[in-house]
Amino acid sequence: MWFGRQLRIGPDELDEVIYGAAILASGGGGDPYQGRLILMQALQKHGPATLLDAARVNNRWLVVALGAVGAPTIALEKFPSLTALANAVRQLEKHLGRKVDALVAAEAGGMNAVLPIALGLRLGLPVINADGMGRAFPKSDMMTFGIFGGRATPMVVADDHMNTVIVDADDNRMAEDLGRRAVVGMGGLAMGVIYPMSGKFFKTAAIRGTITLSRDIGRAALAASREKRDPIDAIIGYFRNQRKNARYAAKLFTGAITRHQPKTGEGFVRGEIEVTNNDSGGICAIEFQNENLIVRIGGRIAALVPDIITILDEDTGDAITTENLRYGQRMTVFGLAAPDILRTPEALEHVGPRAFGIDRDYRPIETLMGA
Amino acid sequence: MWFGRQLRIGPDELDEVIYGAAILASGGGGDPYQGRLILMQALQKHGPATLLDAARVNNRWLVVALGAVGAPTIALEKFPSLTALANAVRQLEKHLGRKVDALVAAEAGGMNAVLPIALGLRLGLPVINADGMGRAFPKSDMMTFGIFGGRATPMVVADDHMNTVIVDADDNRMAEDLGRRAVVGMGGLAMGVIYPMSGKFFKTAAIRGTITLSRDIGRAALAASREKRDPIDAIIGYFRNQRKNARYAAKLFTGAITRHQPKTGEGFVRGEIEVTNNDSGGICAIEFQNENLIVRIGGRIAALVPDIITILDEDTGDAITTENLRYGQRMTVFGLAAPDILRTPEALEHVGPRAFGIDRDYRPIETLMGA
Repeated sequence: MWFGRQLRIGPDELDEVIYGAAILASGGGGDPYQGRLILMQALQKHGPATLLDAARVNNRWLVVALGAVGAPTIALEKFPSLTALANAVRQLEKHLGRKVDALVAAEAGGMNAVLPIALGLRLGLPVINADGMGRAFPKSDMMTFGIFGGRATPMVVADDHMNTVIVDADDNRMAEDLGRRAVVGMGGLAMGVIYPMSGKFFKTAAIRGTITLSRDIGRAALAASREKRDPIDAIIGYFRNQRKNARYAAKLFTGAITRHQPKTGEGFVRGEIEVTNNDSGGICAIEFQNENLIVRIGGRIAALVPDIITILDEDTGDAITTENLRYGQRMTVFGLAAPDILRTPEALEHVGPRAFGIDRDYRPIETLMGA
Repeated sequence: MWFGRQLRIGPDELDEVIYGAAILASGGGGDPYQGRLILMQALQKHGPATLLDAARVNNRWLVVALGAVGAPTIALEKFPSLTALANAVRQLEKHLGRKVDALVAAEAGGMNAVLPIALGLRLGLPVINADGMGRAFPKSDMMTFGIFGGRATPMVVADDHMNTVIVDADDNRMAEDLGRRAVVGMGGLAMGVIYPMSGKFFKTAAIRGTITLSRDIGRAALAASREKRDPIDAIIGYFRNQRKNARYAAKLFTGAITRHQPKTGEGFVRGEIEVTNNDSGGICAIEFQNENLIVRIGGRIAALVPDIITILDEDTGDAITTENLRYGQRMTVFGLAAPDILRTPEALEHVGPRAFGIDRDYRPIETLMGA
C-alpha cells in the first residue's frame, strides 16, 4: 500500500481526538460537541477514516486547507454544514480547473480538526495528519502556509444556502479581510477552503502529526479521568515524557469566572474574562479574540500568544471554548508551549502578541513562569 | 455589415453623451468629469466607438453589465480603473469558461454610461446602446435585469490592485450584499461585472437606446447653452416633443443649498440637502442614497423614486452628482418621469420608495405636480 504510515480514526479514537484537539486549540477551533456529532455521523455512515502521514504527500498533489470560519458564538446556533464545505471544495476545483487531491485541517480544534476528516470520508479524498496552525488562531493569514510564503487564494467561502464567494488577492491579509467580510455577509459563520497548494510546498510549511498528537493527549487525559486521576496532570506528564518533542506545560490558575463580557462582531468574538480563586483571593485575567491570547495573574503576564492557553472545566475536565465560557464556571487555566515553528521571528511577526494589538514582545511561557 | 443600426460616438458626441447621461442619472452614475477623461482617452487611442442597437443582439450571446460600484464620494479621490474592469471581465470569462460577447452599461450616468464604451474600445468588444436602469440606482438588485427575472451572479468585483471577488448567490439581494461588502473591503470603490445573461434574455429586460437618448438630451441642452437659452427648458422641450416616447419633465425648484450633511459608509453616501429660494423664502428638501430619492417642497412631496430627480448647477447648466453638492451652491432641481418599465408594480417592488426605506406609496411626478 502506497499510503504508508496511516492513522486510523474509528469510534474508539473519536473522543480522544476531539478531546486533544480542543486542548490544543487555545479556546478556539470550534465547539467539540458539534465536532463530535459531525465526525460520529460520518464514521457511522462511511466506516473508520485513515489519515495520511504528511511525509507521504505527493509533491504534485493539490492540497487545500479547510474549516469553519467566523464568530464561534454564532456557530453555536448555526450548525457548521458539511454540504457547504463540500460545495466550497467543488467551487474551488471548478475555479482552478483541477481536482483537489488531499485535504488538511486549517487549524486544531474540537470542530476544525475533524471537519476535514468527515469531509474526506464523504468525498472519498485523503486527509492529511497535520494542520496549518498547531493550535487555533482567529485569522487565515496566521496559518503556517501563509507565514512560510504560501498564497491564501483563490479562497472559497460558502454557506449552507449555496452562496459562495471566491476571493483572489496577492496579499494574505487582504484575502483574510475580504473573506471575513463574506463570512459576515453570510450571517457570521461560513465554511472556508483556503491555501490551494502543491504537496511539495505543503510539506515545507505544515505542522505535522496534529491528529496523532490530539489522540495521544486525549488518550492520556481520558485514561486518567477514568482512573480518577487529574487529566491535566496526565497531559502535563505526556508532554514532559516526550523525547524529542517535549514541550513545557503547566496549570496556570484555578478559580471561578467572576467577570465575562464577550462581544461578537466583524466575524469574531472578542473580550476578557476574570477568574477569581476563592481560597487565595488571587485574580487571573484572560483576553481573547476567538482564541485566548494573554493570561495575567495578579497583574503579571503568565502566558502570551502564540503559546497555548486553554481553559478546562473543573468538573468534566473538558476544554471550554471561548464561546462556551459562562459566569461562575469553575475552571483551570492550562498553558502549553507553542510548537517551535511558531516561535521563530518569522512566525511571531504574524502570530505574536503585536499581531493581535497587544503591545508586548513575545516571551515564552516557560520563561514567564520561571521554569 | 451585420452590425445593423449603429450609434457612432466620436469626439463630437463625447460631451453630449456625458451631459445627457448625467441628467438621466438622478444625481448618481459617477462623476461626469472623470467619465469624460476616461472616454476621451479611449477615443484618442482607438478612434470612434460604434454602439450596437439592442435589437441586433444575438440570442446566444453572453452579455454582461458593468460599472463602477461604491460610494461616489470615494470615487472622487480614487479614479475608476479600466484595467480593474478589464480584469473583472477576464475573471468572469475564466469562471464561466466562455468568452463575453457584448458589454452593456449597468446604469446611466456621467461615468457608468461611458465606462463600457471605453472598455469595449480597449477589448475590441461590442457595446450595446442600452442600460439596466434607465437612470442610476444605488444597488445592483435594482437593475431591470434582476427585476425581470435575471440572476446577478456570478458577479465579479475587482480593484486596481488586482484583488477580485467572485460572488455566487441565488438571491440578487444577497448577491448585492456580498458584492457590496467586497467593495467596502477594497476601500469603498471597485469595478463590477454583473448579470451574465443570454442575448435573448437581455432583449426582454434591457432599457434600450440609453446612449442615443443621452446624446439627444445633451445635444438639445448644449445647443441651447451656446445660444444663451436655458438648457433645462431645452431638455423639457425635447421630452415634450417626442411622439411615442414623450415623458413628463419639469423644473421643480430653484435656490441655493442651505444645509448639506452627507455620510459615507457601507459602500454608499447617504444624506439630505435643503435648498432655499431667497426670493420666495421657499424651502426644498432632497433625500439621497447615492442617487436623489425624494423631493419635498414646502413639506409637500414633489417627486419620488424611481422618477428622476437631477440637480443642475445654475451657472454651468451641468448636472451635479450627489458627491459634488456643496453648501451655498445655486441650483435648479429638475424632475423627469421614469421610463414606463420602472413604473410597473413589478418594478416598484424593487425600486419604489419603500425599497429605500421611504414609507410612502409611489405616485408619478406628473400627478404630484398636478400636471
